Amino acid sequence: MTESLLLQNVRPLEGDRADVLVIDGVVKRVGAGLEAPGIRVVDGRNGILLPGLVDAHTHLDKTLWGRSWHRHSAGPTIQSRIADERRVRKALGYSPEEQSTNQVRQAITMGTTHIRTHVDIDTEIGLANLEGVLATRDRFREAIHLQVVAFPQSGLLVRPGTEALMAEAISMGADLVGGIDPSSMDRDPVRHLDTIFAIADRAGVGIDIHLHEPGMLGAFALELIAERTTALGMQGRVTVSHAFCLGMVDEAYLEHLTGLLIDNRIAIMTHGPGDIAFPPVRRLYEDGVTLGCGSDGIRDSWGPYGNADMLERAMLLAFRSGFRRDEDLELVLDIATGGGAQVMGLADYGIAPSCRADFTVVAGETRVEAIMNRASRIAVVQGGRVVAADGECLV
Amino acid sequence: MTESLLLQNVRPLEGDRADVLVIDGVVKRVGAGLEAPGIRVVDGRNGILLPGLVDAHTHLDKTLWGRSWHRHSAGPTIQSRIADERRVRKALGYSPEEQSTNQVRQAITMGTTHIRTHVDIDTEIGLANLEGVLATRDRFREAIHLQVVAFPQSGLLVRPGTEALMAEAISMGADLVGGIDPSSMDRDPVRHLDTIFAIADRAGVGIDIHLHEPGMLGAFALELIAERTTALGMQGRVTVSHAFCLGMVDEAYLEHLTGLLIDNRIAIMTHGPGDIAFPPVRRLYEDGVTLGCGSDGIRDSWGPYGNADMLERAMLLAFRSGFRRDEDLELVLDIATGGGAQVMGLADYGIAPSCRADFTVVAGETRVEAIMNRASRIAVVQGGRVVAADGECLV
Repeated sequence: MTESLLLQNVRPLEGDRADVLVIDGVVKRVGAGLEAPGIRVVDGRNGILLPGLVDAHTHLDKTLWGRSWHRHSAGPTIQSRIADERRVRKALGYSPEEQSTNQVRQAITMGTTHIRTHVDIDTEIGLANLEGVLATRDRFREAIHLQVVAFPQSGLLVRPGTEALMAEAISMGADLVGGIDPSSMDRDPVRHLDTIFAIADRAGVGIDIHLHEPGMLGAFALELIAERTTALGMQGRVTVSHAFCLGMVDEAYLEHLTGLLIDNRIAIMTHGPGDIAFPPVRRLYEDGVTLGCGSDGIRDSWGPYGNADMLERAMLLAFRSGFRRDEDLELVLDIATGGGAQVMGLADYGIAPSCRADFTVVAGETRVEAIMNRASRIAVVQGGRVVAADGECLV
Repeated sequence: MTESLLLQNVRPLEGDRADVLVIDGVVKRVGAGLEAPGIRVVDGRNGILLPGLVDAHTHLDKTLWGRSWHRHSAGPTIQSRIADERRVRKALGYSPEEQSTNQVRQAITMGTTHIRTHVDIDTEIGLANLEGVLATRDRFREAIHLQVVAFPQSGLLVRPGTEALMAEAISMGADLVGGIDPSSMDRDPVRHLDTIFAIADRAGVGIDIHLHEPGMLGAFALELIAERTTALGMQGRVTVSHAFCLGMVDEAYLEHLTGLLIDNRIAIMTHGPGDIAFPPVRRLYEDGVTLGCGSDGIRDSWGPYGNADMLERAMLLAFRSGFRRDEDLELVLDIATGGGAQVMGLADYGIAPSCRADFTVVAGETRVEAIMNRASRIAVVQGGRVVAADGECLV
């Protein structure tokens, strides 16, 4: 269900004051002094108009948002955090539908209009988390766009039976095939990648791989991913999430890897991790690599951070990148909006005529001030419908 | 001016619900169901009671808080940022008194009860910034405790005349002598340090040195600082701010440096920088080094970050340290409260009887949730006086 709307008194990307006329969920006109008798009018109160924020990587089936506080005590390795998560989920009687709903409502409130979420698939969980998240996707279909990645968090080859579940996940409605650390998790990078590329190829869907592997191990995985992208003609449909290795290799090798990314139109997603090297954002952006950013896990058993606010995420990514100039922070905001939209393959994204009317209106003299203040969003619009206003979720 | 107060219905450090009776600015009793007829009652609304937050390092004479947005365009070096700052200050007709007032009011609102601020002293600014900040200190004397460091931001030896100004600053009321990068800024580490230690020794005040110098250059400076601390018997009165080198040297050298810090009771201040190595917080804490943290510059010409909220600073320091367990985040909160109090040499700090009644009350099931949510402070108390409540500064 889309709606019509006259959004008055906003500043598109901090530009001149304008009104935006939306008809049936689509931007018709952007200009000063628009009138549209009979159409609902919303006052943007001189806020900055941004296209909807895009959270290009999160885990809706892990969050503990909205629950009593969880005391974090997992060990430092990914394996120990996975094991701890199983224990916590059981102890809490975790409901993926309820918890993904909690995070989705928070994300809507903070102005996110599009989310790509990874959802754990394994032989213990089976497809239960996917069912929960798909139920949430259906329920909020009119308020937020969810893209779902079938994610073999606990490994693919090391857990026989996972491959079949992954294929089933796609047939149930997952949008992409996920993968994870093909050497360090699955102990066989070629077979791991061949397996997930084959599932994606058969189903005609894209891929989004978690790659935490450091240095040259990660770089080798990136090369294998690029080779398979080329071989299967999947250019423009593969994302590598995290890709810490891009922040670890030397200049010459980075140039080589960047070439592979560009040739294969492989997108990179970073969340700006706190204490690990990560992709050099400005460098990749200027080279033409598609870049998105995401929340990653929000207040889950893995850690207490995050609040589903992509403006806070933009601040953190800029902070970690050492950015201080406004133009660098604007670049990060571009990654949290248009960049993420490219990662997700969104058509009709933006605030120009014929774009889908997905917006966030936020107070601030400039975009960078908005990132720093992170005030309650004045209005959040999805398909012309006001889904949140003044810090309240309306759906 | 101190006041009496019965603060009801708070949870000291997230412990059991209690009341706190304050008489003439001093904690008399902490316990359940206290009564005190005739004394002002404030409802803490079941918030967590923390001792007042301590911002152990900021620059009140640099902030642009409360002004129209400043577009940041300085280059990447410290020298270029200092030059840019001179240009910006002139262009804006910068008022140190007005701007320090703006930041102080924001800090009070966010629950900070003690600030150590560095104030630029040089042959161009002279003592004007100091005069402005001292005026703010006087004006807010009843609402926040300010400690002032005379800071030779632009160098001491390279700007003849600065040494005399530094000594004059102390006689005007600055509390400590500052210093900065004795090799890379002043080109003569021995003479730089001898000069500032001599000023401090003559005046009988402490020292707080900005040390950005990386790796072994910074480590060498730390050794020189420790030697002078020993020679002058200044143990417990010297702080090294930033000390990035402690995050860069190898394990054996770190152990050697830590020994010097402990032997000389030299405190370390870190703000958790975004993109540079910094001191290993848990390691130093467990070794017994005094640690404080601070905002550093807030929304100044150097960069757009910061909001004077020490809970956000605690989150950032934990995030940068890779902390995910609640006990690690509690450690960081301890650094942002009691640790900073030690750095500043505060007597009677805490929430036990006979402590000075400087508190912050914040919503949250646990301290870590409070750090993550960073809700408006329910109440901020200084010397028994309520100086802020529900996000409003009352002074």
